[in-house]
Amino acid sequence: MRATVMFGAGDVRIEDVPDARLVEPTDALVRVTRACICGSDLWPYGNLEPSETGRRMGHEAIGVVEAIGADVRTMKTGDVVVMPFAFSDGSCVFCLEGLHTSCIHGGFFGTSDVDGAQAEALRVPQADGTLFVLPVGEDDALMPSLLTLSDVMGTGHHAAVAANVDPGKTAAVVGDGAVGLCGVIAARRLGAEQIIILGRHADRIALAREFGATDVVSERGDEAVERVRELTGGVGVHCVLECVGLEQSMLTAIGIARPGGAVGRVGVPQDETIPASQPAFFDNVTVSGGPAPVRAYIEDLLPEILDGRIHPGRVFDRVVGLDAVPDGYRAMNDRDAIKVMVKP
Amino acid sequence: MRATVMFGAGDVRIEDVPDARLVEPTDALVRVTRACICGSDLWPYGNLEPSETGRRMGHEAIGVVEAIGADVRTMKTGDVVVMPFAFSDGSCVFCLEGLHTSCIHGGFFGTSDVDGAQAEALRVPQADGTLFVLPVGEDDALMPSLLTLSDVMGTGHHAAVAANVDPGKTAAVVGDGAVGLCGVIAARRLGAEQIIILGRHADRIALAREFGATDVVSERGDEAVERVRELTGGVGVHCVLECVGLEQSMLTAIGIARPGGAVGRVGVPQDETIPASQPAFFDNVTVSGGPAPVRAYIEDLLPEILDGRIHPGRVFDRVVGLDAVPDGYRAMNDRDAIKVMVKP
Repeated sequence: MRATVMFGAGDVRIEDVPDARLVEPTDALVRVTRACICGSDLWPYGNLEPSETGRRMGHEAIGVVEAIGADVRTMKTGDVVVMPFAFSDGSCVFCLEGLHTSCIHGGFFGTSDVDGAQAEALRVPQADGTLFVLPVGEDDALMPSLLTLSDVMGTGHHAAVAANVDPGKTAAVVGDGAVGLCGVIAARRLGAEQIIILGRHADRIALAREFGATDVVSERGDEAVERVRELTGGVGVHCVLECVGLEQSMLTAIGIARPGGAVGRVGVPQDETIPASQPAFFDNVTVSGGPAPVRAYIEDLLPEILDGRIHPGRVFDRVVGLDAVPDGYRAMNDRDAIKVMVKP
Repeated sequence: MRATVMFGAGDVRIEDVPDARLVEPTDALVRVTRACICGSDLWPYGNLEPSETGRRMGHEAIGVVEAIGADVRTMKTGDVVVMPFAFSDGSCVFCLEGLHTSCIHGGFFGTSDVDGAQAEALRVPQADGTLFVLPVGEDDALMPSLLTLSDVMGTGHHAAVAANVDPGKTAAVVGDGAVGLCGVIAARRLGAEQIIILGRHADRIALAREFGATDVVSERGDEAVERVRELTGGVGVHCVLECVGLEQSMLTAIGIARPGGAVGRVGVPQDETIPASQPAFFDNVTVSGGPAPVRAYIEDLLPEILDGRIHPGRVFDRVVGLDAVPDGYRAMNDRDAIKVMVKP
């Protein structure tokens, strides 16, 4: 079968690899019908050390169950399933607390643990705990929005939850990528009264406004902080959704938080330390977040997609076949595309 | 009158200074009957730049109201009052939210804003919002515990609140100073099932056990993390009360937090960054806390002191007159005393 392999920074290729197959009795074999390129894939695209073997890429997918292991109970061959970016057993203490990304028997797709989803097929460990059977056919019109349940919508939601978004509060979203845009949707559905998007790409900002952003700040750094303060009576926002992961974006996030506010960070941090310890401390600003337990959020978010109340699938502005995945990486890296859907 | 002035690291003197007096109509003039030396006073004691004018020290006090400004409504001459370490108007948006340390018209005692409390008397700004009238005489037997309402008991409580202590959770307290010990009291009264104190001073550990600590970890660094994991089934604690403020203590705090857990930090951070950004992120560990809004907590904590349910005053193991304040600093700095009470 064919799969996406990254051999080093900027070096993405579609390779012939051994067919995916069941290994453990708790596995499912999934034929991938939709996958994605993720903003977090751009970090290794920028800095992955070259290697002979490469790294299998992709951690977001919808697919059709082709085979199940002897112990799999909650799905059958032919089911359409959405795959969260982390696999999890669904039964350990952390899964039961809703923190599937810390599952004791879990891990992440597209790592040394398990292969990636930008491929024709994929072995999914802990299938019962990981996969969620969707009540739709494999070419349903809602497919783009459903696909965001595998990562970006759940991740934007996690940022909003970690930032303590509640009805009537003010929120700001740092980053206008697909996760930031889903963060706008999440902040709105959780009741934020004012939603400020920080970003400077016209197409993304336009979408953010459609998703519910009330204000736009295109400045950066200290000027962005100043502008957010102007928009919030001088005090900053209750809730900051940090959807980038860089030192500068965290500095901005902490700088625009109101005293007693919270930063929910979901951008994978690229630095070893969190900046602005003392400002955060003296303002009692909370820093929270991490990899989103998107598996836990599907039950909440799915009905709103099925009912047409939210449309996170609009973040996809390009669709490619497997052969064009390298072009998709380039497009996202150059900010020519917000988010790329892959149809293997 | 006489007051404590720090002229540089290790250089604390009792000086004759102009008498405290009312300045604003919202001020009260308080004769100090009890003050304290604080763990946070040891930071400038270790590194204050020498100066001719020096810095007036002290931010915790109980005293008797000697005079009030024309606009003061909630107290009268002769009232016994406890003074939180921050002054606050009690009416701004942050005070109304219970975050008095971010009061728009507030500030901190013993800074360039306002003089310190290790003195015979003190001007208290925003008296109505700041001071809390106590229902006791000025020499009540409960005075030591009541005095902790000005800082350490409220601060330990804040650490527990920021760390999300709830009934049945596991907690750990990093630091066995007066705030850490009060953190043990706070964790217990909020229902923590297991309370691990990290510290190595026999007298403090003994007191921690009396306050409710169930386990003691005297190791440091990686060994401390290992030991806490052993004590918690390998996963770490839900709630960490960080009561030191050093990089190493934050590393330990994040290291012993269970995935999805929280670190409530109240030790004044001595570094510009928070360490272990990536471990905290991947475990979804929240970092929260800051200067405690102790004014907000007095109403909760005072009845328990008056009823004898909690005895935070036991953290005081030395009492000095104003002349012996420099010795008190030395004793606390050398860890000969847990916390020093000052009777001017």
